[in-house]
Amino acid sequence: MKIEAVDFFYLAMPEVTTEADGSQDALLVRVAAGGHIGWGECEASPLTSIAAFVCPMSHGVCRPVSASVLGQTLEEPEDIARIAAAVEYDSMDLLQAAHTFSGVEMALWDLLGKARGEPVWRLLGYAASHPKTPYASVLFGDTPQETLERARAARARGFSAGKFGWGPIGRGSAKDDADHFHAAREGLGPDGVLLVDVGQIFGEDVEAAAARLPDLEAAKALWLEEPFQASALEAYGALARRSGRVKLAGGEGAHNVHMARHLIDYGGVGFIQIDCGRIGGIGPAKKVADYAVGKGVTFVNHTFTSHLALSASLQPYAGLADHRICEFPAAPKPLAIEMTATHLEPDASGQVAAPDAPGLGIEIDPAAIRKYLVDVEITVQGKTLYETPPLDQPSHPTAPHGSAG
Amino acid sequence: MKIEAVDFFYLAMPEVTTEADGSQDALLVRVAAGGHIGWGECEASPLTSIAAFVCPMSHGVCRPVSASVLGQTLEEPEDIARIAAAVEYDSMDLLQAAHTFSGVEMALWDLLGKARGEPVWRLLGYAASHPKTPYASVLFGDTPQETLERARAARARGFSAGKFGWGPIGRGSAKDDADHFHAAREGLGPDGVLLVDVGQIFGEDVEAAAARLPDLEAAKALWLEEPFQASALEAYGALARRSGRVKLAGGEGAHNVHMARHLIDYGGVGFIQIDCGRIGGIGPAKKVADYAVGKGVTFVNHTFTSHLALSASLQPYAGLADHRICEFPAAPKPLAIEMTATHLEPDASGQVAAPDAPGLGIEIDPAAIRKYLVDVEITVQGKTLYETPPLDQPSHPTAPHGSAG
Repeated sequence: MKIEAVDFFYLAMPEVTTEADGSQDALLVRVAAGGHIGWGECEASPLTSIAAFVCPMSHGVCRPVSASVLGQTLEEPEDIARIAAAVEYDSMDLLQAAHTFSGVEMALWDLLGKARGEPVWRLLGYAASHPKTPYASVLFGDTPQETLERARAARARGFSAGKFGWGPIGRGSAKDDADHFHAAREGLGPDGVLLVDVGQIFGEDVEAAAARLPDLEAAKALWLEEPFQASALEAYGALARRSGRVKLAGGEGAHNVHMARHLIDYGGVGFIQIDCGRIGGIGPAKKVADYAVGKGVTFVNHTFTSHLALSASLQPYAGLADHRICEFPAAPKPLAIEMTATHLEPDASGQVAAPDAPGLGIEIDPAAIRKYLVDVEITVQGKTLYETPPLDQPSHPTAPHGSAG
Repeated sequence: MKIEAVDFFYLAMPEVTTEADGSQDALLVRVAAGGHIGWGECEASPLTSIAAFVCPMSHGVCRPVSASVLGQTLEEPEDIARIAAAVEYDSMDLLQAAHTFSGVEMALWDLLGKARGEPVWRLLGYAASHPKTPYASVLFGDTPQETLERARAARARGFSAGKFGWGPIGRGSAKDDADHFHAAREGLGPDGVLLVDVGQIFGEDVEAAAARLPDLEAAKALWLEEPFQASALEAYGALARRSGRVKLAGGEGAHNVHMARHLIDYGGVGFIQIDCGRIGGIGPAKKVADYAVGKGVTFVNHTFTSHLALSASLQPYAGLADHRICEFPAAPKPLAIEMTATHLEPDASGQVAAPDAPGLGIEIDPAAIRKYLVDVEITVQGKTLYETPPLDQPSHPTAPHGSAG
């Protein structure tokens, strides 16, 4: 098969707010090859990611992502790795390339899996898709009482694990934060798995983060997620040496395999969280999973958007029976729910698993896409490099984009 | 002063090729505040970087760069640092943000310097602008004979130092490469400073890079630049431990201060090369220079484009008398020369220095901008988020861009 078309669909809620909720918009990718269709999703700025696909070439290693994808052969998993390597090298000076390619790469796996009638996890070499324990990913309330209620609600919905994130944490005193940690524990119950995400709030300030450790430990938090800027490896390492029973978690900001490995090797994280919509897709995430196994670190998906992204993020560690925790977007915006016709609901015992179905096993709902579609047009020197493609059939570009001419 | 307008101008040569020559296009930035104008330049994909400035917000920490810049107060260097911190946090999930902000940040320094009648290096705390020894930055020839001729030509133009990059190196045998190294040495003469840049060609393959070390040492190369992928810290570290008298150089891929520090601490480079058009501007580059001094590592600018970018890249280490080497774009495309009316020509002793003039000390040539201007329009939901701005006066947006609505 040759990759004939790559189409991007920018979806958004009618109103997008400053809330730390990544499900307010989405960038869907549709790939067509050999009569098959694959779908993927970038966890990234939609307009900027589209621009990185269609932009004119700047020089030999600042080529648009399209230049390494359109017209390429797709028959084997190795073809996806070859295309990924071409993007990495030929777009090395195009910073956004990894975010753009992430959704494309996912769609290539989905397409290849459908063409072969195999789930992606099997193409990755796994013999089985092991069930995972989903945690409800919710935001801290503005008050401890609100946090308590959200924790109780998660438990009432059947979640035995809950992750509380962002909100007021780190913006007031350690005592203020402690009240939220204990409220979350109370709401989850003594046997619940409590996870805490502070969204880089401490920058590089190791002491400020360390001041929260005693209360996190008292509340029996399993992990403290993203205390620092995504690249602050020294701060991660320094805190990890002091964090005792509370392990550090991080990795959602990794846009290549190196960054994830550095968080393990230099940052000392106990949990490495990978978003397939940012790290370059499923292939790089699988490399991180393999590396984590060798280092005794637990792999966890990072997913705050749709069930297409959720299925993709489960694939890289589907076969790792001992890596059981799974982020499950518990309260996403309607567009993230509606854009897929298939959903990965927890089973009777509350577990979820990557589907045993061809590709990613997720069907897209065209009506929902149409409802949330954001119309975009990009023209350069009077030539239209991008316009929102038709939903009913793949576009067929006559030539790859590559020059401003 | 309030930042009233930020205008981007995308310039390109009529034909852009796959040559590893970053001067084939440019993204100029004009900032207006309090009746003053500042200019900067992103070393980045122009269309993608523009998109990252104007894109609709995706969520609280995936805001467009514009949201942290437009309308902000600019009176002191600390204001620039505050704006940079806002971009880093509020655009943490917008990968392209650092590349986009780099040119804006430069323009903020230029504007502040002009408003105060001070060169930027003085605003950075330096008492003097020390002269640097420029090296001619040229590409390896296709044959050793061509490399020899380019080295002789550089020497004939008065350069006592030359950097040879990319081309066939690493694509054939170590012996093939050796012929180029020795040809470059022959052309430069025995007293010339020889620098070698292999443009990430070895990926993570330490042995392949190490196989070139004996001949680099025999040719008395001062450094081996970018042997590996920009984030391959382990490979850098492993090669550094074996590289003997040839020091490793790298850092142009750094898009934040952390990455540069990691190349020093984990990668063992002896020369840290910073492009102010990528790392987030002059402020972060100054932080790297301070860090390098403390670690006994030499700071070098990375500049392959215009003399506006060259002046900006000289500022962060202008006051470091012992850090003497300076990349000087010796054979850029006409647009990179023509876009500025001022040029930093080597003095009688062949040295260059950051100008003792307000701001960056570089005047822009509007006629050249007009000649190479690439016309762009980006519309979202029927609303024009970007169109090539008028050259003669700053645009005055009525509101920051920030929602898809």
